[in-house]
Amino acid sequence: MPRILLLNGPNLNLLGEREPERYGSTSLKELEQGLRKAAKGEGVELEAFQSNHEGELIEAIHRARKGADVIVFNPGGYTHTSVALRDAVLASGVPTIEVHLTNIHGREDFRQRSLIAPVAVGQIAGFGVESYYLALRAALGLIARGGAREGGG
Amino acid sequence: MPRILLLNGPNLNLLGEREPERYGSTSLKELEQGLRKAAKGEGVELEAFQSNHEGELIEAIHRARKGADVIVFNPGGYTHTSVALRDAVLASGVPTIEVHLTNIHGREDFRQRSLIAPVAVGQIAGFGVESYYLALRAALGLIARGGAREGGG
Amino acid sequence: MPRILLLNGPNLNLLGEREPERYGSTSLKELEQGLRKAAKGEGVELEAFQSNHEGELIEAIHRARKGADVIVFNPGGYTHTSVALRDAVLASGVPTIEVHLTNIHGREDFRQRSLIAPVAVGQIAGFGVESYYLALRAALGLIARGGAREGGG
Amino acid sequence: MPRILLLNGPNLNLLGEREPERYGSTSLKELEQGLRKAAKGEGVELEAFQSNHEGELIEAIHRARKGADVIVFNPGGYTHTSVALRDAVLASGVPTIEVHLTNIHGREDFRQRSLIAPVAVGQIAGFGVESYYLALRAALGLIARGGAREGGG
Amino acid sequence: MPRILLLNGPNLNLLGEREPERYGSTSLKELEQGLRKAAKGEGVELEAFQSNHEGELIEAIHRARKGADVIVFNPGGYTHTSVALRDAVLASGVPTIEVHLTNIHGREDFRQRSLIAPVAVGQIAGFGVESYYLALRAALGLIARGGAREGGG
Amino acid sequence: MPRILLLNGPNLNLLGEREPERYGSTSLKELEQGLRKAAKGEGVELEAFQSNHEGELIEAIHRARKGADVIVFNPGGYTHTSVALRDAVLASGVPTIEVHLTNIHGREDFRQRSLIAPVAVGQIAGFGVESYYLALRAALGLIARGGAREGGG
Amino acid sequence: MPRILLLNGPNLNLLGEREPERYGSTSLKELEQGLRKAAKGEGVELEAFQSNHEGELIEAIHRARKGADVIVFNPGGYTHTSVALRDAVLASGVPTIEVHLTNIHGREDFRQRSLIAPVAVGQIAGFGVESYYLALRAALGLIARGGAREGGG
Amino acid sequence: MPRILLLNGPNLNLLGEREPERYGSTSLKELEQGLRKAAKGEGVELEAFQSNHEGELIEAIHRARKGADVIVFNPGGYTHTSVALRDAVLASGVPTIEVHLTNIHGREDFRQRSLIAPVAVGQIAGFGVESYYLALRAALGLIARGGAREGGG
Amino acid sequence: MPRILLLNGPNLNLLGEREPERYGSTSLKELEQGLRKAAKGEGVELEAFQSNHEGELIEAIHRARKGADVIVFNPGGYTHTSVALRDAVLASGVPTIEVHLTNIHGREDFRQRSLIAPVAVGQIAGFGVESYYLALRAALGLIARGGAREGGG
Amino acid sequence: MPRILLLNGPNLNLLGEREPERYGSTSLKELEQGLRKAAKGEGVELEAFQSNHEGELIEAIHRARKGADVIVFNPGGYTHTSVALRDAVLASGVPTIEVHLTNIHGREDFRQRSLIAPVAVGQIAGFGVESYYLALRAALGLIARGGAREGGG
Amino acid sequence: MPRILLLNGPNLNLLGEREPERYGSTSLKELEQGLRKAAKGEGVELEAFQSNHEGELIEAIHRARKGADVIVFNPGGYTHTSVALRDAVLASGVPTIEVHLTNIHGREDFRQRSLIAPVAVGQIAGFGVESYYLALRAALGLIARGGAREGGG
Amino acid sequence: MPRILLLNGPNLNLLGEREPERYGSTSLKELEQGLRKAAKGEGVELEAFQSNHEGELIEAIHRARKGADVIVFNPGGYTHTSVALRDAVLASGVPTIEVHLTNIHGREDFRQRSLIAPVAVGQIAGFGVESYYLALRAALGLIARGGAREGGG
Repeated sequence: MPRILLLNGPNLNLLGEREPERYGSTSLKELEQGLRKAAKGEGVELEAFQSNHEGELIEAIHRARKGADVIVFNPGGYTHTSVALRDAVLASGVPTIEVHLTNIHGREDFRQRSLIAPVAVGQIAGFGVESYYLALRAALGLIARGGAREGGG
Repeated sequence: MPRILLLNGPNLNLLGEREPERYGSTSLKELEQGLRKAAKGEGVELEAFQSNHEGELIEAIHRARKGADVIVFNPGGYTHTSVALRDAVLASGVPTIEVHLTNIHGREDFRQRSLIAPVAVGQIAGFGVESYYLALRAALGLIARGGAREGGG
Repeated sequence: MPRILLLNGPNLNLLGEREPERYGSTSLKELEQGLRKAAKGEGVELEAFQSNHEGELIEAIHRARKGADVIVFNPGGYTHTSVALRDAVLASGVPTIEVHLTNIHGREDFRQRSLIAPVAVGQIAGFGVESYYLALRAALGLIARGGAREGGG
Repeated sequence: MPRILLLNGPNLNLLGEREPERYGSTSLKELEQGLRKAAKGEGVELEAFQSNHEGELIEAIHRARKGADVIVFNPGGYTHTSVALRDAVLASGVPTIEVHLTNIHGREDFRQRSLIAPVAVGQIAGFGVESYYLALRAALGLIARGGAREGGG
Repeated sequence: MPRILLLNGPNLNLLGEREPERYGSTSLKELEQGLRKAAKGEGVELEAFQSNHEGELIEAIHRARKGADVIVFNPGGYTHTSVALRDAVLASGVPTIEVHLTNIHGREDFRQRSLIAPVAVGQIAGFGVESYYLALRAALGLIARGGAREGGG
Repeated sequence: MPRILLLNGPNLNLLGEREPERYGSTSLKELEQGLRKAAKGEGVELEAFQSNHEGELIEAIHRARKGADVIVFNPGGYTHTSVALRDAVLASGVPTIEVHLTNIHGREDFRQRSLIAPVAVGQIAGFGVESYYLALRAALGLIARGGAREGGG
Repeated sequence: MPRILLLNGPNLNLLGEREPERYGSTSLKELEQGLRKAAKGEGVELEAFQSNHEGELIEAIHRARKGADVIVFNPGGYTHTSVALRDAVLASGVPTIEVHLTNIHGREDFRQRSLIAPVAVGQIAGFGVESYYLALRAALGLIARGGAREGGG
Repeated sequence: MPRILLLNGPNLNLLGEREPERYGSTSLKELEQGLRKAAKGEGVELEAFQSNHEGELIEAIHRARKGADVIVFNPGGYTHTSVALRDAVLASGVPTIEVHLTNIHGREDFRQRSLIAPVAVGQIAGFGVESYYLALRAALGLIARGGAREGGG
Repeated sequence: MPRILLLNGPNLNLLGEREPERYGSTSLKELEQGLRKAAKGEGVELEAFQSNHEGELIEAIHRARKGADVIVFNPGGYTHTSVALRDAVLASGVPTIEVHLTNIHGREDFRQRSLIAPVAVGQIAGFGVESYYLALRAALGLIARGGAREGGG
Repeated sequence: MPRILLLNGPNLNLLGEREPERYGSTSLKELEQGLRKAAKGEGVELEAFQSNHEGELIEAIHRARKGADVIVFNPGGYTHTSVALRDAVLASGVPTIEVHLTNIHGREDFRQRSLIAPVAVGQIAGFGVESYYLALRAALGLIARGGAREGGG
Repeated sequence: MPRILLLNGPNLNLLGEREPERYGSTSLKELEQGLRKAAKGEGVELEAFQSNHEGELIEAIHRARKGADVIVFNPGGYTHTSVALRDAVLASGVPTIEVHLTNIHGREDFRQRSLIAPVAVGQIAGFGVESYYLALRAALGLIARGGAREGGG
Repeated sequence: MPRILLLNGPNLNLLGEREPERYGSTSLKELEQGLRKAAKGEGVELEAFQSNHEGELIEAIHRARKGADVIVFNPGGYTHTSVALRDAVLASGVPTIEVHLTNIHGREDFRQRSLIAPVAVGQIAGFGVESYYLALRAALGLIARGGAREGGG
C-alpha cells in the first residue's frame, strides 16, 4: 500500500489557535485526521509528523527514504532559511510537494523566497487548510502515475 | 449557475506541442475540454479563453467582473512582467487562482517573482496539466464556501 | 487649432467603477468630456483615446507625430514596464505630460519607477481626476509658449 | 479665509539667477508675488517662506499645523535626504503638495527618490515655475473640496 | 501573580566564560537569580529558560502563551536568521522585549538586522548584563500598565 | 526553398523617420526590400513582418515554427522586458538571430540586458541598418550549414 | 555632581501633540521635567536640549565634551541620515545612549539603519516615553561604574 | 594525548548513500574509523560526532572547549545559515578547520558564502572524503606546532 | 586681488582637539591663519568660514558667487549626505576644490561616496592639514591660469 | 590601401584545440589567414595580432592609432574586467568592432557585461568563427563609408 | 613519471619577506624546494613557476596542457579578478587545485569571491605554507586515483 | 639623498596625445622631466617609470621596497580592477600617493571605486598634470616629516 508522509514544520502545532483569521480554526490533529481518512479512501496510507525542530524534520525526511512514496511538506518558517532541509529533500530522493496555508508570495519579502521549492515537485500556497487537500490530491496523482508527473517540469 | 473563467496567457496555445518533455503532451483544447467537463460535473460552468495579447487578457479579466465567480489564471510569461494584469486582477475584484505548469520557483531568477501572486488568492505550480485540475478544485471550494476561504491568508 | 491627445492606458476604462475609494467615481467618458470641454474653452481640440493594448498605445503615439501638439498620457500599469512606450514617446517628438491618479511615489516599490518620466516634460501624480485638469493646464501653457517651457529642465 | 503656505527649500532663493537655462529667469520674489496674487484672486491667502536651513523648514511646517490649510512645498535638495522633513510633514497633518521645477525623474539616480512624496498628497514636477501655478490650482481644489480629494489615493 | 519568561538563546549558557571582555563575567545562573530576585521584589514571578535549540525556544514561547505576561528574549545568533522564532513570537501573542548584551548595530553587517525586532515591543542592546535589568524594568512597566504601553508605537 | 522570417518589433515602423541621426534614413520598407532581394540572390525567401504588438510578434514566431528556417529578430523595446517573447522563441525551436540598430551595450542600463539573447543563436548590435545585412549573412550561413553552426556556443 | 545631557532631535518638540496614538500624550516639557527629577533623586543633574537644527545638535554635543558625563540622545529623523552627528558623537568622546520612542526596527526600511548606533554605547527603542527612563537608568549605571560598562561590548 | 573533535553536520549521516556520484560511496562510519585510525597512528585521539540538530552541534562545540585541541568541522547545510554555530566556534576558542566534500565555490550562490569560515583557521573543499584526510593532516600540523600556524593569517 | 573662500563644515571647529591621532594637533584657527598667510604671500586674499550648519554653508557658497574666485571646501560629514550643498556648489558656478584630512576612500563604506566630488574640480584627501596647503596651491594654480585647468577633466 | 587590425585576446591562441564543441575546430592561424585573404579580396590589408598579455593588447591598440582604419577585437576574458583596454580603445580613436565566438549574453552573469562594448562601434557575438567574417564585413562597410556608419548610434 | 605544475601568481615572489606575521617567513625558493623534494619522494616531478604577469600565468597553464597531470595554483590577487585565468584553466583541461596562504573567506569582501574556484577541483585556504603541502597531498591523491576523485563533486 | 618613484600605469604613455581636451597637451616625457627637476630643486631624486603591463608595475613597486621613500602612483585603468597592485603596494611598505589627472569621482560608476586608495596615504584627483605637482609636494612633505604625516589618518 503506497504511503504519504505529511510533514509539518515549526509553529504548525498551533494550527487552529494561532491567528485564526489568518490560518483558520481547524486544529492540526483534525487536519491530520481528515487527510488520513481522505488518503485511506484512495487506498493510500498517510503518516503525519510535526516538529518545531529542524533536526527532527531532517531525520523524518531521512526515514522517508525507505518509508514514503511522496512527502507533503509545509516547512513553516524554515521554508526561507534552511539549506539543511533542502539538502535532506534532495538526499531523500522522495518526490516532495511544498504546501503553505497562506499565499507567501503576497507577504513580507523574506517570505517570498523558498529554499525548498527548487527541489520540490511543486508548490501550493494560499488556500488555508484546503492547500493540504489539494496537495494530497497532487500526491495521489503522482502515486497513480508511478511517480512520473505528466507534463510536469 | 456559478461560473469559472479559465484564462491562459502567451504561448499556452502551443500546449502539447512546445517542449513536451517540460510541458506534457495534452493540447490546450483537450485541457479546456477536460476542465469544462469536470466543472460541469460539479454544477459549474467553465469558460475558457487564451490569448497571447496582454491587452486581450486584461479585457477578459474586465469582462469577468460581471461574468465569473472565480478566475483560474496562468499568465505565462506575463506573470513576471505585467503590472497592468496585476492591476486588472485587482480592479476586477474576482478571486483569482494563479496556475503554472512548471515549478517556476526552481527556474531562472526572473521567473521566480510573480507580479500577480500578491493579488491572487493562491498559487499552484509544478504539477503539469494536473496543476489546472488542482486549481479547479480550489476554485470549486471557493465557490462552495461563498468566496470565503476557510483559514486562507 | 492646436490639438492635445489625451491617452489613457490599461484599466483606465474602468475609471469610476474600479476601487472608487482609491480612484474616484468619475467615469472615463465623463472625464474625457470634461477635459474636451475645458480644452475647447481655451481654443484647443482634445482627442481622447484609451487602450489596454500596449501596441495600440504605441500606434496612437505614432499618429500623434502628425496630429497633436501635446500628449497628456496616463500609461497605467505600463508606466513601470514599457520600454517600447518610452521609445514611442521619444520617437514621436511630441511633448508629453505624464499623469497619474494616485501618488505612485507612495505605493509599492515597483510603481515608483517610471520608464516614461525621463522622456516626458513633467509628471503630475496623486490628485485623482484633478491630475488630468492640472495636466491640461500644463499642456495649454506649453502650447501658449510655443512648446518652449519657461524655466523647465 | 483659507491659507496656503508656500515653502521653498535650499538654493531656491537663487531662482532666476542660477542656471537660468534649467530653472528659468523668474526670481523667487516675483514667483511668490505672482502666486500670492493668483491665490488672492481665489479668496485664499498665501504665505511664502524660503530657507536653506533644514531646521527652519521643519519649524515652518510645525507652525503650519495651526496656520495653513495646505502646504505647497519644494524641498529642493532635501527632497532626497531628509527623514526629518518627512516626519515634520507627517506630524503636521497638513495636506502637502510636492513641487519641483525640473523633472527629477529624468535626472541623476539620487534625485529620483523623494522621501517626502510618500507623505504628500501628490507631486508635480518638470514644468518650471509653471509647476507652482499647477500646485496652487491643486491646493485650491483641495481647499474647495474641504481637504478631501475626489478620487485621490 | 504576573509572570515574566526570561528566554535566552544559543551560546548564552556560556555567559561569564565566553569572551568576558565582550560579554562580562556574570554567569547565566547569577544573572537569572539576580533578575528573579529583582522581579520578586516587584511582586512578579520570573521563570528562566535557556536553550541552544531553536525548536526548544519555539516551544518555550508556545508554552508562554498560557503562562507569561511578558517575554524578555535574547535570541542570540538566531536573532538574525530565524523566521520560525519570529513566527512563534507572533503566534504567542505575548508582548516580547528583545535584549542584547552587545550593541549589535555596531558589529558585522549580518548582525544588524533582527528578524525578531519587528514583532517585538522594543529592543534594548549594548549595556552588557545591565541590558537585562533594563528589559526587566520595561517588562514591569508593561505589566503595570496592563500591557498597554503609553506612547509606544 | 529555405525561408527566413524578418521580424521587427515596436517603433521600427518609424525607421528612417525617427531620430535619423541615431537610426539612419532608410525606411523599413526599403530595408525589407533590400534584404528580400539580397536573400533571393542567395536562393532564400525572406518574409518580413513588423508589429508594435507583443502578442502579434509572439504569434508570428509561432507561425514560424512551420514556415521558417531562421528568424532574424529585432525585438525593439521588448528586448529588455518580454519574457513572453523569450518563451515564444524557445517554444518555436527556430534558430533566431537578435539584431539591433544601435549598440545597446553603450546606452541606458535597462537597455543592456536582453531577455531574448540567452535563447538566441547570437546577437549583432550597433551597425545601423547594416546590422540587418550582417544578420542576413549569418542566417544564410546557418542555412548553408544545415542549421549547425561551426564552432558556435 | 555628575551630569547627563538629554538631547532631542527634530520634531520631538511636538511630543504629546503629534500622532499621540504612536508617540503618546506626554509633552516634551513634562518628559524633561520627569527625567530631571528622577535624575536629581539619584544625585545627578540632567540638562535638556531639543533642536530641529542639525547644526545646533552638533554644537550641543561639542559643548557636552566639557559638561556631561553621559549623553542620552534621540536623534529623531537625523538618526538615519546624519554622518555629521555621528562624527560629533565620536569627536565628543562622551558615552552616548541612543533612544527611540518607537521600535524603529519594525518600521520603514530607511528607519532601520542608524548611523549613530555604531558609535553609541547602546540603543533602547520601542517603549514610548518609558524608553527615556530606561535610558536614564542605563546612564546612571554608566556613571556609577565610572563610565565602564560591565560586560558591555 | 592530544584530541581532535571530528564534527559533522546535517545530512552527513547519509554519506555513502546520498547522491554517491557527488559525495562518494564511503559511509560516515567508515570515514570516522579511517580518520580515527590515521589519527591514532600519529598519537592523537579523534572523537567523532554527527548531528542533524543545530543545537547539538553547538553543544558539542561547547564541550570541545575542555576536551579538544582542534575541531575538524563539516557544518553541512548550516555552513551558510548559522550565526549561532559561528558564535559557538568563536566562543569555544578551539582552532577549527572547515571541511567540505564538494567544491562549494562552484555550486549555487547561497552555498558560496560560509558564515563559519571567517572564524575558522582555514577551509578545505572539493576533494570528497579526501578533504577530511587533508583536514586531519592540517589539524596534526596545528597540534605539532602547538596551535601556532607558521605563516598562517 | 583674487579671493579664495576656505569653507569648513561640521566638526572641523574641533580640529586639533578631536581624535588628534587621526586629525592632527593643529587648531582650525592656526590652520586658517597659516593658509591666509600663505595665500597673501601669493597675492591672494583668503577668507575663512566654518559652520556646523548645512544652511550656513549653503549661504556661504551663495555669497561666494560674488566674492570668490575659488572655493576650498571640506564638507566634513555633509560630504556624503548633502544634495543641497551639491546644488549650491553647482548653482554658485565657482570652481570648488574638495579637501579631506583623512583618506576617506579607506574608511567606512558610507564615507567613500562624495556627493560633492562630481561637481568639484578635484579632490585631495588623506594628507592631514597638509591637504589644505595642497588645495591652496591647486587653487592658486586655477587662479593663475584664469580658472581654466590645463589638462583637467 | 586601408588596413584592419585583427586583435585577439587571452586564450584565443588555443582556438581549434580548446573545447572544440564550444569554440569550433578552426585554428587561430587558419582563421587569420582566411580573414586576411577575404580582406585582400576587398582591397584591404588585415594585420593579425594575438596576445595573452593585457599590456601587449593595450600597446597594439596604441600602435593602431597610426596604422589601422578599423580594429576587429575579441578581448576574450579581458572583455569583462579591463578598464585599461577600454581606455586604450577610447584613446586610440580607431573605430573598434567587438567580436565573440560564443553568445556571451547566454552564459555566466559575469560574462554578460562588456567594459569594451560602450566604446565600440558595435558587437557581434555567438556565431563561432563566422562572427569574425561578419565583423570583417562590418569593418569593410565602415571603411567604404569613410568611417561614418549609416544609421548607427 | 607524473608531473605537477606549481604555479604562483603576483606578489608571491615576496614570500617570506612581505608581511611575515601574515604570510610566514619561508621564502618562495625554500617552499618550492620543499615541495619538489616531497613530490619526488612520492615519485612525482614538480615544476615550479611564479609570475606577476597575468599573461605569463595564462601561458604556463597553456603549456601544462601537454606537460602536467595536476596544477597546484595560488593565483594571488588575480584570484578575484581574472576571467582570463579562469578561461585558461578551463581550456587546459588539467585538474587544478586552488591554494591560498590565508583564509580569504575571513578577509575583505572582494577577496571572498574566487573566479578560479568554480573551475578548480577544490580549494585549500588558511594554513600558511602548510596549505601547499596539503595541496600537494591532494594532487598526489588525484594522480594515484588516475585523476578521478572518489566522492568529489 | 631621498628618492621618489613616479609610477604611471596603462595608457599614460599617450599623455598629451590622447583626448587632449580631457588630459591636456603635456607629454609624459615633459611631465617626468618637469617633476624630476622640481624634485631635484628640493634635494630629492625622482625616478620615473611607465608601463601598460600590470606585472611590470607590480615589479616596479617590489623594487621600490629597497629604492624609494615614497611612490607617486597613477594606476590608470588598473585603479579600479587590480587587487594584485593593491597587494603589491601593501607588500612594499612604501608610502604611496595615488594621483589622477581627472576627477574620477565625477565619471562612470566603475571609475569611482579605487582598489588602491585604501592602502595609499592619500589621493589627489582632478587637476590635470597639476595633480602630479601637488602629489610631488605631498611626497616631499612626507619625506621632510620622516614619513610621518602630521594629522593624517
